[in-house]
Amino acid sequence: MTVSDLTEAELIERVRSRLRPAPAWMVVGIGDDAAVVEPERNRLEVLSVDALVEGVHFDRAFTPPAAIGHRALAVNLSDLAAMGATPRLALLSLALPDALEVEDFDAFIGGLAALAERAGVSVAGGNLTKSPGPLMIDVTVAGTVKRRGPLLRSGARPGDDFYVTGTIGGAAAGLQILRMKRSTTEDAEDTEDQNGCIDRYLYPEPRLRVGTLLGRNRVATACIDLSDGLADGVRQIAGASGVGAAIDACALPLDPEARRWFTSRRADPVFEALTGGDDYELLFTVRPRARKQLHAACRSAGVPMTRIGACTVDRAIVLRVGDADAAWPRGYSHFR
Amino acid sequence: MTVSDLTEAELIERVRSRLRPAPAWMVVGIGDDAAVVEPERNRLEVLSVDALVEGVHFDRAFTPPAAIGHRALAVNLSDLAAMGATPRLALLSLALPDALEVEDFDAFIGGLAALAERAGVSVAGGNLTKSPGPLMIDVTVAGTVKRRGPLLRSGARPGDDFYVTGTIGGAAAGLQILRMKRSTTEDAEDTEDQNGCIDRYLYPEPRLRVGTLLGRNRVATACIDLSDGLADGVRQIAGASGVGAAIDACALPLDPEARRWFTSRRADPVFEALTGGDDYELLFTVRPRARKQLHAACRSAGVPMTRIGACTVDRAIVLRVGDADAAWPRGYSHFR
Repeated sequence: MTVSDLTEAELIERVRSRLRPAPAWMVVGIGDDAAVVEPERNRLEVLSVDALVEGVHFDRAFTPPAAIGHRALAVNLSDLAAMGATPRLALLSLALPDALEVEDFDAFIGGLAALAERAGVSVAGGNLTKSPGPLMIDVTVAGTVKRRGPLLRSGARPGDDFYVTGTIGGAAAGLQILRMKRSTTEDAEDTEDQNGCIDRYLYPEPRLRVGTLLGRNRVATACIDLSDGLADGVRQIAGASGVGAAIDACALPLDPEARRWFTSRRADPVFEALTGGDDYELLFTVRPRARKQLHAACRSAGVPMTRIGACTVDRAIVLRVGDADAAWPRGYSHFR
Repeated sequence: MTVSDLTEAELIERVRSRLRPAPAWMVVGIGDDAAVVEPERNRLEVLSVDALVEGVHFDRAFTPPAAIGHRALAVNLSDLAAMGATPRLALLSLALPDALEVEDFDAFIGGLAALAERAGVSVAGGNLTKSPGPLMIDVTVAGTVKRRGPLLRSGARPGDDFYVTGTIGGAAAGLQILRMKRSTTEDAEDTEDQNGCIDRYLYPEPRLRVGTLLGRNRVATACIDLSDGLADGVRQIAGASGVGAAIDACALPLDPEARRWFTSRRADPVFEALTGGDDYELLFTVRPRARKQLHAACRSAGVPMTRIGACTVDRAIVLRVGDADAAWPRGYSHFR
C-alpha cells in the first residue's frame, strides 16, 4: 500500500495517532486552518525552518525512513540549540511521492515523533501534498529563550576562545561508509567498528541542553551549530563578529572511529572532519574569564567541550599545524 | 544566468534586498541560526504552513514567477484570515531547480515581497536548498489574535446562517482559461473578457481585514478559507461542528465572468464553482441575531458577503435547487 491509496485525512490521522497529546498551552492543534498557541510569558520567541530534500540531503537507498524523520526534526532543533532556545512546537510540511509505501511513511513519522517526545516538542500542525519528484520535508520549529539569552553568531571578540561540543567527523565518515556499503555490497564486517559513525550520521542528537546552559548567564559570546561543518562554522562566527580565528589542528576532537576510517581511506582526517557536514555539534566562543562558568555548564550537561583555538584581531582564519599555518578549508555547502 | 551560478549567500542577499526593513520587535532577523522575535502582549499566536509544489499547485508554463511568489504567501495569509488573525511574520523555505533563471527567482521574490509589504508581514528567515526535481515553496506564517478571538471550524450550531465573501468560481475559470490558452495557442481575444478570472487565479487576495472583523466581537461562529473550494469548505465546517447544511444553489455568488466561461464550455457553472479550488474567499457561519453586526462588519470591510444557506440539525449536506435537493458534490483535493 502506498500513500496514494490513502486520503489526506487518513494520512493526517496516521500522523496524529503517533504524537504526544497536545499540551494545555496549545489552544488549537492539528485540524483547523492554523494552530493557535498561548505564548510563554517574559520570553522571546525563536523560529527556524529547515528542509530535507531527497537526493540532496538524504538518499533513501541507505537512509531508513525512521532516520529521515529523526533528522528532519533534529536539524531544526539544532538551530534552536545554537540560539540557546528551548523548543516548544513544530509544524510539518511534507511533499510525498505517490510511490511512497505507507509503512515507510509510518516509520518516518515514528522517527520524528520519538525525537519530538524526548525533546518536549509538540507538533502543532502542518501540510501534506503529493510530490511529482523527490520526497521533501520542511519542518518549522518554534521555541523560546530568556530575554537576554539568545546566542548570536555575532558576539565573539578578539581573545575569546573557540570551543566545540562532543566530537567531529563522525557523521561525514558515517555517510561515506553508508555510501560505500551501498555501492560495493561490501560485507558489513569490514565496517563493523564504524557503526558509531553511521549512527552519528543517521540519528544526530541536537545539543539542546548544552545550548540552554551556554545561553544562561551568557557563558558563550557567540554560537552556531555545525550543520555545514566546522570550517563553515568558524567562518560564519568570524564573519558575523568581525574577528579572525586561529584554530589548532591538534586540538580538534576528532571522532576516533572516524579518524581510523579516513586514515584507512588515505584521506586527511583533519580536512575531512573540518569540511564534513552533519555533525550538529555546537561551536561557540567564550571569554577567558568565563572559563569557570563554562566548566560548570560542561559538567552539568555531561557533554565534553574542547577548546580548539581563539578569536584574533587579524581577520584571517588560520589552521595551526604544529608551528606552521595552513590554509583554512572551504566549508561544505548544501547549495552550490 | 541561473540560480546554480550563485552561492546561497548571494541568493539570500537578493531576497533580503527586496524586503521591508525589520521592525523593532524582530530582535534577530535573516542571517543567524534562527529568528528571534518579541511576542505581542495579551494575544494568542497563530501559526500555519503551506506548500506550493510545481506540477501539483502551479504550472510554470503559464504562471508568471511573480504570481507564484504572490500565491505562496497569499495561501498562507488566507489561513490566518480564516482564524481571524493578524499576520506578523513569515519564514520562507525554497527548493530551487538548478535551471531556474535568476531573473525568475527575483520576480518570484518580488511578487512575494509586494504582498508581504501590503499585508504588513516581515520575512524573519528561511532556508534555501537546491531541488533535483520541481520548484517547491514552503511558507510558514505567524500572526496573532485576541485571546477570545480565534475563529474555529467547529463553532457552528443548527440555525446559524452560512455566508461567503466576494464571489466564487473565478479562480477555477481562470485556471481553465490559462490551461486552454497554453494548449491551443488560441488567441487571447476570445478570452479577453475573462481576464478578471485569470487575475483571480494568479493573484488571490487573502481576506485579512474581513477575518479580523469577523473575529472581533465573535460575529462569526465558525470560519474556513476556500482554498479547496466551497464544497469542501461546507463539509469541513459541518463535520467539525457536528451540524448539517442546506445550501441554496441560486444564492451562490458566482463570478459573472466565470459563469459565462463555464456556460460557453457547456459545463455546469454551479458545480464548477462549488468544486473549484483556489478562490481564497472566506466561508463562515453567523447566528441570525448577529446579522446586524455582520452588516456593519461588511460595510467596514468593503467586501460583499452573501448568505448562501443555513446549518441544520440533520447532519446531511444538501444543495437546494428550486424545490428539489441535489447531491452535494465532493470537494477538490490537492492530495488525492
